[in-house]
Amino acid sequence: MSTTTSSMIHPSAKIGEGTTLGEFCVVGENVVIGKGCRIGNHVVIHADTRVGDTVRIDDHASLGKKPMKAANSATTKEQELPPLEVGELSIVGTGVVLYRGAKIDAKVLMADLATIRENVTIGRGTIVGRGVTVENFCTVGRFCKLESECYITAYSTLEDRVFIAPGVVTSNDNYVGRTAERFKHFKGVTVKKGARIGAGTVTLPGVVIGEDALVAAGSVVTADVPARKIVLGTPARVWRDVPVEQLLENQGWVDS
Amino acid sequence: MSTTTSSMIHPSAKIGEGTTLGEFCVVGENVVIGKGCRIGNHVVIHADTRVGDTVRIDDHASLGKKPMKAANSATTKEQELPPLEVGELSIVGTGVVLYRGAKIDAKVLMADLATIRENVTIGRGTIVGRGVTVENFCTVGRFCKLESECYITAYSTLEDRVFIAPGVVTSNDNYVGRTAERFKHFKGVTVKKGARIGAGTVTLPGVVIGEDALVAAGSVVTADVPARKIVLGTPARVWRDVPVEQLLENQGWVDS
Amino acid sequence: MSTTTSSMIHPSAKIGEGTTLGEFCVVGENVVIGKGCRIGNHVVIHADTRVGDTVRIDDHASLGKKPMKAANSATTKEQELPPLEVGELSIVGTGVVLYRGAKIDAKVLMADLATIRENVTIGRGTIVGRGVTVENFCTVGRFCKLESECYITAYSTLEDRVFIAPGVVTSNDNYVGRTAERFKHFKGVTVKKGARIGAGTVTLPGVVIGEDALVAAGSVVTADVPARKIVLGTPARVWRDVPVEQLLENQGWVDS
Repeated sequence: MSTTTSSMIHPSAKIGEGTTLGEFCVVGENVVIGKGCRIGNHVVIHADTRVGDTVRIDDHASLGKKPMKAANSATTKEQELPPLEVGELSIVGTGVVLYRGAKIDAKVLMADLATIRENVTIGRGTIVGRGVTVENFCTVGRFCKLESECYITAYSTLEDRVFIAPGVVTSNDNYVGRTAERFKHFKGVTVKKGARIGAGTVTLPGVVIGEDALVAAGSVVTADVPARKIVLGTPARVWRDVPVEQLLENQGWVDS
Repeated sequence: MSTTTSSMIHPSAKIGEGTTLGEFCVVGENVVIGKGCRIGNHVVIHADTRVGDTVRIDDHASLGKKPMKAANSATTKEQELPPLEVGELSIVGTGVVLYRGAKIDAKVLMADLATIRENVTIGRGTIVGRGVTVENFCTVGRFCKLESECYITAYSTLEDRVFIAPGVVTSNDNYVGRTAERFKHFKGVTVKKGARIGAGTVTLPGVVIGEDALVAAGSVVTADVPARKIVLGTPARVWRDVPVEQLLENQGWVDS
Repeated sequence: MSTTTSSMIHPSAKIGEGTTLGEFCVVGENVVIGKGCRIGNHVVIHADTRVGDTVRIDDHASLGKKPMKAANSATTKEQELPPLEVGELSIVGTGVVLYRGAKIDAKVLMADLATIRENVTIGRGTIVGRGVTVENFCTVGRFCKLESECYITAYSTLEDRVFIAPGVVTSNDNYVGRTAERFKHFKGVTVKKGARIGAGTVTLPGVVIGEDALVAAGSVVTADVPARKIVLGTPARVWRDVPVEQLLENQGWVDS
């Protein structure tokens, strides 16, 4: 199935040399796809989307969709959004949904059924795990790992080399959906460089996880976490220092 | 792509004026779709489904599917189900799965990858977040917010203006899959008018969350929660009153 | 729509008598599908996949995909994988993703949006719930119930008749993504015959849940759990014996 006969490609779309499409794809107006991409079946690429070279896109992915505005949504705004960009050598899993207004750098892996909303940037080499949601107005750094099924609330900032374990939940509204005041105070989590958040934890709105800190699995984080400390429990308290051999500076990692 | 050339539409289906379909849609026997709907690509609408006017349906959604009966499922029954209904001005996100036998009122937003099972009603103006599951035999009221990735177990009742935060887990079987007794006692959660359940909480079977009560993030709720109280911890205990300015009656909200 | 006109079927594929396909399916090279299967719309079945008799596959499912290898993935290896096998009388829900190198026995239900990775075996009669992820290198026994949205980390073993409640999180890396040491020590959870894990719990890497034990909802399991005991809390401690009437041996269940 290297050359497709069944896909619908808008005449204005540009598709690079050596790129293959599966069956029943839909490629919209003014889409630009680089060279050497491998695109699966039933993939939809909406108008204006830019896909770099050597990108893999699996079945049923939908790229470049416009936000859905509910009558009573607190954080989705009607706005002009720049086209979705997906950097070279990235991988887009099966059933992934990427919004117009997201900017995905090179070598990013988005595993099956992940969703990345509008007004989000994802840095080079980051892994966005299976079923992960990155809500709108988030910044995710380089070489992060967002493991399966973690949830990144709107208005969050994750710096480089951050690790978010499976099933992590974050939140951004201390007013829990009430008062007009809350609209001024929405604040997601801030996870500083190299910090790690353990499996199944819950982090409250506005919390800052310090550089290279570690939140132990199952904790509930209600206050800021100091750099290079491990916190633990409900609510999470400082337990001890991150072991020296686990510090980011001792991993010998080189950006690539 | 305003008029489609590639979709398969059963000759008995009725599609209203001004409705547009994307590519490769499948519209089954006796489906009725209202006026002015915008339907994406690869959307499947199974037999008999009723969709109101001005509904948006995004790529890869599947509407009106019949339940899957496993040999050893405890709560899925073989039965005749009425057609799926989706009310006017509703929005159905990418990859959403709606079952035959669900009844969705007007102005409901179902975000990407949400699933709504059979024998469920969803009230007007409710938001069903990204990846949310509403299991079978649930009633969800008007103007509720079920935020991303929350899980509503079978046999639950959510009244109007209920707020369920991201990653909330509910359960319905105190016998945890054992004894024949359990079939008589399946009971989800009951969340009274205006009550709110915080992020990443776990609520046990049969619990009643009182009117306008609030469960703090990360709690484990093992017993009923009194009206207008905040509960906190594992297991959750009454902490204090819900602040007056957060009470439902003080929001000035008007149904629309 | 009993006979399809729109699907793309590779000439080398073999499809059994009485099997029906919906619209816009893609069936790849050397695929073998048994008799009497009901296959929905937009289903993709990748090369070499084997599907048994009387299997139901719903819309937008994707079977037999090859793993995606990120530059910095810790557990995905490049390798030759045997074809995906799906046993007779199994059910594959809407949007399900099954990898090449998985082996699914007979009468398995995989509910909507579940993902089963490579190098996984699933035993006869098991239910894999809505949105469940079974990561690579897992063994799941017979007649298990993995309820909606639970997460089974890589390198886990679930024996027969195991029950995993909704929203359960498991983890496999005690080094939380740091040190080269960790590659030698990845270890998921081991859940012995008939053990049950309650809703919204978090289980740490390498933990063994003993035969017919029960983890209460909302617990954080940091140490092995003795057989036939109930554990509770954060961290989970032994609370009491599993009630006799709930023991596996007293259910009168017969394998079928």
